[in-house]
Amino acid sequence: MYALVLAGGQGTRLWPCSRQSRPKQLLNLLGERTLLQQTVDRIKPLVSPERTVVVTNAAYSTQVREQLPEIPADNIISEPEGRNTAPAVALGTMLISQRDPEATVVTLSADHFIQGERGFLDTLLLAAQVAQDGYLVTVGVPPTRPETGYGYIQLGPPLPQFAAGQVHAVARFTEKPDEERAKKFIADGQHLWNAGMFIWRADVVLAAISRHLPQLYSLVGQLAGQRARLPEMLASIWPLVPSISIDVGVLEKADNVAVVRAQFAWSDLGTWTSLAEVLPRDAEGNICIGQEVVGLEMRNCLIHGRRRLIATIGLQDLIVVDTEDALLICHREKAQAVKELVDMLRSSGREQYL
Amino acid sequence: MYALVLAGGQGTRLWPCSRQSRPKQLLNLLGERTLLQQTVDRIKPLVSPERTVVVTNAAYSTQVREQLPEIPADNIISEPEGRNTAPAVALGTMLISQRDPEATVVTLSADHFIQGERGFLDTLLLAAQVAQDGYLVTVGVPPTRPETGYGYIQLGPPLPQFAAGQVHAVARFTEKPDEERAKKFIADGQHLWNAGMFIWRADVVLAAISRHLPQLYSLVGQLAGQRARLPEMLASIWPLVPSISIDVGVLEKADNVAVVRAQFAWSDLGTWTSLAEVLPRDAEGNICIGQEVVGLEMRNCLIHGRRRLIATIGLQDLIVVDTEDALLICHREKAQAVKELVDMLRSSGREQYL
Repeated sequence: MYALVLAGGQGTRLWPCSRQSRPKQLLNLLGERTLLQQTVDRIKPLVSPERTVVVTNAAYSTQVREQLPEIPADNIISEPEGRNTAPAVALGTMLISQRDPEATVVTLSADHFIQGERGFLDTLLLAAQVAQDGYLVTVGVPPTRPETGYGYIQLGPPLPQFAAGQVHAVARFTEKPDEERAKKFIADGQHLWNAGMFIWRADVVLAAISRHLPQLYSLVGQLAGQRARLPEMLASIWPLVPSISIDVGVLEKADNVAVVRAQFAWSDLGTWTSLAEVLPRDAEGNICIGQEVVGLEMRNCLIHGRRRLIATIGLQDLIVVDTEDALLICHREKAQAVKELVDMLRSSGREQYL
Repeated sequence: MYALVLAGGQGTRLWPCSRQSRPKQLLNLLGERTLLQQTVDRIKPLVSPERTVVVTNAAYSTQVREQLPEIPADNIISEPEGRNTAPAVALGTMLISQRDPEATVVTLSADHFIQGERGFLDTLLLAAQVAQDGYLVTVGVPPTRPETGYGYIQLGPPLPQFAAGQVHAVARFTEKPDEERAKKFIADGQHLWNAGMFIWRADVVLAAISRHLPQLYSLVGQLAGQRARLPEMLASIWPLVPSISIDVGVLEKADNVAVVRAQFAWSDLGTWTSLAEVLPRDAEGNICIGQEVVGLEMRNCLIHGRRRLIATIGLQDLIVVDTEDALLICHREKAQAVKELVDMLRSSGREQYL
């Protein structure tokens, strides 16, 4: 088994902690280790560092190497620029397939939250069985709320040759539904969240890419056997590859997609609110991280400090993130708008805060 | 005419801007000049710096001298510790009376907001006329809301010898009423806010102190003619003087108290909310001071920045005060509780933030 870790994202909505030069996966938002390190640690019982490949952005590659000293330098691939997930998957999988064309590849995001390590590994082991049979396997998380920021997977018929009720064909993918639709998905019991976690044989997914994204397949194919010249070749090829997700580019079109029910808790940690949802709260529903907080009549807040004392009176449902040069105060229900805020900073020439 | 400026307060409720080492009157909360400087500037058309006496706390005297270079050093008196207003008034007035026993003394707080300079001076000129007739004159501000943090003056009969309707005897003082009572005061049209601003002849107020606070009068009397030895004598006498306000200690008991209606806008700037009430707002009701603020869907907020970018999303009715080592975020209606917060910091050993 191999692991392909996608570590090229920015995590804009976790500004001001995430920055252009230090994106979400390189931050230690959930403990001592960074999200990237936790991702690699978590898969280690199944996949050795020698078989772990990381695709990241060239801007982050130095930090990625520093954070993952146990991973061979040749296993860390730098994209000249982010082109969504399909090109990164094609590139990483192609390099793995040169070592073992029938390798089972677990593709993971470097910046997600997962709770329940044993269930995580059990889920992957079951998914690997399904993948061995030639399926493109996704992981579906039982939804706990009508989240509009996630993709949903509609269950097709169960695949009876695997553990009863745990594995289904996929009827349909739906990206970020509106709230009404999300509520229907929760109610019908036939939808799972798409965790963006994939298990497949290298040959199977490369065949699917070849069929559904032939241009990408052909461009990435030129890189085969060129590890030493990879940086310069990527510089010329990457501007030509389509910027598309593996979900939209391949999975939504393929007919051999299966979904395994996740036996663990999951969040994409996309926003400060979703981070707040997975962290332990005190009796008043507050989460205080970092420097000292003195709160009077505070309820349901996330306070992420650094060096300053943070004193609050009468706050409810707020997210406060204090960094050296920028302070964010955001209503809990508006955390999606941090992206808009960052766009405003960019368009108004405040590059120093990005 | 002489001015006696009381500059010994702390302004705890404006933490984290006001600190033990830098109290409210020494801050420039309303423009370039500090509140103390504005107080002295404002009275200058009537009183020269040579006739302006400042009573402050020993801890602030260096800063006071630096901020008021035009005031003779001998006119700046340092209390060894704050003992409320009556001792400061007695001390300052006694020193003035040695230069002119019948001097008209305008006693002013160093940390209040006043808008309408012409009306302010007119009010004082009228008050000085009344004072010449032997009255202890207070200034009453027509109330604009049922404020529970202020003292109220109930109007007695008009004094017909002065400008019609502008000068009354005082029927009663009421300190900080509850909300129900404050609403009644507003409704009856017979109450004014006590602006803590007094105009009287030195001999008249000293006689009143001698009658109502004889111990204070006698202790302060020992200092007469001892300007050179004042610091050491104060050190031994001050622990013995009663800690009491001039309102409670003298005015509530005297029978020659008058009130002049203020022809200016006034606030004691006691809290961040009261500061917000006197500063200009933008179309969404926001006040942003200092460093840059980027606010999405922000309403009715006061943001007082310093060096950091402050970005907000979806905030309403909040006060944010960002300083080098401490950040306050407070609901607008809870600004009185800043005092409680500062007490908590003290009792929990966080002296470095006081």
